[in-house]
Amino acid sequence: MPARVIDGAAIARGITEELRVRVARFAAAAGRPPTLGIVLVGEQPSSLIYVRNKNRTADALGIKAEVIRVPASSSIDEVLGLVDRLNQSSAHDAILVQAPLPDTIAAGTERVFERIDPAKDVDGFHPVNVGRLVQNRATLVPCTPAGIIEMLEREGVRMRGARAVVIGRSGIVGKPIALLLLHRDATVTICHSKTPDVPRIAASADILVAAIGRAAFVTPDFVKPGAVVVDVGINRVTDAGAVGRLFGAQSPRLEEFGRRGAVIVGDVHPDVADVAGAMTPVPGGVGPLTIAMLMKNTVTAAERRWRGGT
Amino acid sequence: MPARVIDGAAIARGITEELRVRVARFAAAAGRPPTLGIVLVGEQPSSLIYVRNKNRTADALGIKAEVIRVPASSSIDEVLGLVDRLNQSSAHDAILVQAPLPDTIAAGTERVFERIDPAKDVDGFHPVNVGRLVQNRATLVPCTPAGIIEMLEREGVRMRGARAVVIGRSGIVGKPIALLLLHRDATVTICHSKTPDVPRIAASADILVAAIGRAAFVTPDFVKPGAVVVDVGINRVTDAGAVGRLFGAQSPRLEEFGRRGAVIVGDVHPDVADVAGAMTPVPGGVGPLTIAMLMKNTVTAAERRWRGGT
Repeated sequence: MPARVIDGAAIARGITEELRVRVARFAAAAGRPPTLGIVLVGEQPSSLIYVRNKNRTADALGIKAEVIRVPASSSIDEVLGLVDRLNQSSAHDAILVQAPLPDTIAAGTERVFERIDPAKDVDGFHPVNVGRLVQNRATLVPCTPAGIIEMLEREGVRMRGARAVVIGRSGIVGKPIALLLLHRDATVTICHSKTPDVPRIAASADILVAAIGRAAFVTPDFVKPGAVVVDVGINRVTDAGAVGRLFGAQSPRLEEFGRRGAVIVGDVHPDVADVAGAMTPVPGGVGPLTIAMLMKNTVTAAERRWRGGT
Repeated sequence: MPARVIDGAAIARGITEELRVRVARFAAAAGRPPTLGIVLVGEQPSSLIYVRNKNRTADALGIKAEVIRVPASSSIDEVLGLVDRLNQSSAHDAILVQAPLPDTIAAGTERVFERIDPAKDVDGFHPVNVGRLVQNRATLVPCTPAGIIEMLEREGVRMRGARAVVIGRSGIVGKPIALLLLHRDATVTICHSKTPDVPRIAASADILVAAIGRAAFVTPDFVKPGAVVVDVGINRVTDAGAVGRLFGAQSPRLEEFGRRGAVIVGDVHPDVADVAGAMTPVPGGVGPLTIAMLMKNTVTAAERRWRGGT
């Protein structure tokens, strides 16, 4: 029996639907909608797509997303100045600076994230928010790991006492999801590029999170029968042969490839469906959840500002 | 062949000896010694001992440790006011508020830690410093986990590619030591009270850190032959029978018990010496390293303030 496919898009819709009443209540009290300022530096194609998706979801929900576009040639001081202005603005509840910044100022990324008022930091990247996450008292948790937890909870996946293995140790996904699972009483192991025996360790997991950014890296030998597999990867595969080998010659993904010249593939090999108990698809799994949690963080930030909390 | 005993006290002396030249250089430049303000609220006996030990080590090194004692009846606002004063003081490079606070104000502990200027926070408990630790760019790392890493490095214990298991998930030891080991390329698992099979998981570790606060909890079946075992526990055992069972009827610890009515026992059972490759004793292992790292953090904070860094 193939793994149950977890419908991330449907769960994301559930999360955003539940936000409607909070958005309406805030708007009635504040006389304006919850407002998210999105700083977009330059014209990176994938960033344009991400920002458009965030914008569209916000619009549908009644959240105001204001995209502030500045040229790729902007200096780091100009970006910091923009952040300062949004920090001070009483009309903005939430701030997001779309990563990556252009190469010329990429070295300043941490300075930019650290400049955002922690109370408006809906990406949860500010060290104060990261520190509070470690201390299990964060209000603004990075969107992707927060979305994974929401999904596991809504799917009734037992975290307490479970073995969880996270492959990947980024600050955006790997480390925060490990902490969140730990705080829900899972026994957590973090594997990475220097781990000598990832498949064997991964195969001990009841909950396996793949967040390494390598297409189809997690093959069936990584997976304990019946495990829940969460695929965080978003990898663009541009080789037709590779797509055929991954999905089989009859797959609709080949047709998609024909139209677009590429398909998006997760970190988990499709054959894992033969072993896992449940798994998230790519696309349509963790991606929509990330955007839903961005909306939730925006509403939370707006409510807390309105109430004068921190 | 019994496990090599890692002499934490000797390593701690090495660390503090290396600090002498930095202390002298700072004092020559600044016209005063590096200065640590220690806030001690009330008269908890163990706190008095800890503060005395910190004070003594500082004195021997030429660091000025100024203990500010206030009564156990102090309000949280009085303690916060004291922290504010030390934050503003140009004569204080470093601040430590000795935990635990009296029961009456213990609920305010996090507020107090969060009030300390992160640049002076030599305990590394402020969320900004915790967040930077997650981001692998902390300058002030909590003293006990920092001391464990220094010890492993000086003992030539290979962390890269090693399996590390941390038993315990406190914010002071378990979580930060897990992150520090991860950043040194160990594959890290965190076990805790809800982990169903701690002995089996622990026995996969090349490096095993016990930080649960349960006397002699880690028995030989937890330990892979040849593993390095780090004992963070400091448990007071007041039952003579238990001491005899732990250390044997001939042990000098029984004589110690006779004199003091209690002995200090770690989280690791003495019989682990028959299995481990190396282990830290209690007392004389991690304890002295913690104080040495407090001195190192104080000198680091002083130097950075003097240079105008953050």
